[in-house]
Amino acid sequence: MQSFELLSQKFGLHFDQRHFPAEPASLYEPNEYFLRLGGKRIRPVLCLMGNELVDDIKEDAWHVATAIELFHNFTLIHDDIMDKAPLRRGMETVHTKFGDNTALLAGDVMLVAAYEHLSKIDPAILPAIMRLFNQTAKEVCEGQQLDMDFEKMENVQLEEYLKMIELKTSVLLAASLKMGAVLGGAGERNQNLLYEFGRKLGIAFQVQDDYLDAFGDPQKFGKQVGGDIMANKKTFLLIHTMEVASASQKMELNKLVKENPADKVERVLELFRDCKVDEWALQLKDRYLDEASTHLEDIAVLSKRKQPLKDLADFLVKRDH
Amino acid sequence: MQSFELLSQKFGLHFDQRHFPAEPASLYEPNEYFLRLGGKRIRPVLCLMGNELVDDIKEDAWHVATAIELFHNFTLIHDDIMDKAPLRRGMETVHTKFGDNTALLAGDVMLVAAYEHLSKIDPAILPAIMRLFNQTAKEVCEGQQLDMDFEKMENVQLEEYLKMIELKTSVLLAASLKMGAVLGGAGERNQNLLYEFGRKLGIAFQVQDDYLDAFGDPQKFGKQVGGDIMANKKTFLLIHTMEVASASQKMELNKLVKENPADKVERVLELFRDCKVDEWALQLKDRYLDEASTHLEDIAVLSKRKQPLKDLADFLVKRDH
Repeated sequence: MQSFELLSQKFGLHFDQRHFPAEPASLYEPNEYFLRLGGKRIRPVLCLMGNELVDDIKEDAWHVATAIELFHNFTLIHDDIMDKAPLRRGMETVHTKFGDNTALLAGDVMLVAAYEHLSKIDPAILPAIMRLFNQTAKEVCEGQQLDMDFEKMENVQLEEYLKMIELKTSVLLAASLKMGAVLGGAGERNQNLLYEFGRKLGIAFQVQDDYLDAFGDPQKFGKQVGGDIMANKKTFLLIHTMEVASASQKMELNKLVKENPADKVERVLELFRDCKVDEWALQLKDRYLDEASTHLEDIAVLSKRKQPLKDLADFLVKRDH
Repeated sequence: MQSFELLSQKFGLHFDQRHFPAEPASLYEPNEYFLRLGGKRIRPVLCLMGNELVDDIKEDAWHVATAIELFHNFTLIHDDIMDKAPLRRGMETVHTKFGDNTALLAGDVMLVAAYEHLSKIDPAILPAIMRLFNQTAKEVCEGQQLDMDFEKMENVQLEEYLKMIELKTSVLLAASLKMGAVLGGAGERNQNLLYEFGRKLGIAFQVQDDYLDAFGDPQKFGKQVGGDIMANKKTFLLIHTMEVASASQKMELNKLVKENPADKVERVLELFRDCKVDEWALQLKDRYLDEASTHLEDIAVLSKRKQPLKDLADFLVKRDH
């Protein structure tokens, strides 16, 4: 059983090479540029870990992990266009550097490249992997659409936000683990428990992300605290506050959102604290983390096989940056 | 052996139904809207005809034909964004009606839906079909990128333009036929001859398209003659004229392209005729059509099996509208 760090290194060695032909350079150079920006490679490593939970890592798991990472990069390139994001990982996004049209096509061809890697695996298992991959890909698109819809809505319910996060973030983490388990030969019950572990872990991760943006230690967080508040981004914190705030608190919050005063971040944070949304968020995170852990416990493999996933879960949601 | 018309009707009955879930409607209604606009369904029917060239149509051919049509619609939705096209088939394009971001995502999810249909076929043949499908998908993206690159270039060589047309248009026609042949159990030699037939037919089709836009009978053509000239679109005609024109003709052509006078279409057409580009285009079309026919002749199946493809080729490139 290998740790996340070790598998991440190994995946880097496998993945960090050219993925596209040289020509036409106007199409493929943007792809290579974006892949060179790197990333944490969480999703492909989850696929490898899902495999290793049940058996030694198969050759096919490397193909699927590669497909997953290319798929994830496809979503990032297109999301950046939609969000008009100028930077990613401190560098220019594809559409900023090469234009919207090329970014659109570069994303398209990145998705096709993902399927090229999928098509290399054992034909006997390919249809099952493709069904899960396709289902997940559609859900990720649905999540992005809901996210855009929510931006235009005044009120979003917690349940709707949860569903969006699940689609946009959780299902790909869950499916990455499950594809690994399928490749490793896990039984259906174990596959589904691992999927649920990933799904709940993804939600806990997002709650932590929202929490850190508001309450993180600026020294450790590495970026400006309150970025989501400044951008009026709907987060677990904002949505919950709107649900529990008094009439006067709601009025103040709506005013801050609309008027963007200079002291907006401090005043919204004060409202968050008055509504005890910081404590609530930590409890919500712990609840999802506990549920995730229970699913992992229930998987019928030797306990030591689960250790790397336990360590990763702890690391991901107990991080303070 | 069924005619194109009959198979087109049958494919319509098979394809014209809902392809996406009801929710989120903000994502899937645009997809359903676009598919309802219809189309000639040439590519999926070529897949069915490729199958029937060698054997009775297999169940799997309907899945692949559906995947091909969804893929083609994905390219149209994204191309319309890139080209900022307001209309398609006389109706609003997806990005015009629903916004660029939704059109981008609707296209993405249309491509995933194509792969969903592919994944339904016999696993023994799935990897081969996926390889051809993926290769073709990448080439179509390359063609679109080259088309955009050429818009910004002053001079495009005929050879470069041919390569672009091949990638953007021909390879999908060729691959549709070949996938059908693979599903029907054709040998490799027959598969490749059929691919070449489709590739050359696609080029002849595009030459005819460019020719009709300039020299078509306005009564029969159904749209304004000279649209490509008005838009300064690089076509077989414009590119060849630039290659054979005298220095003074070139100067006049460049002036017309830059200054867009009221009588631009007539004066460019006069230059085209002076350079005999109308005759040249008809010869070029016939050359590709002859080569396509030779490939079809060389396919080792009974002659009567080839008749529907012969008829279709005649219809496609001898049309006057």
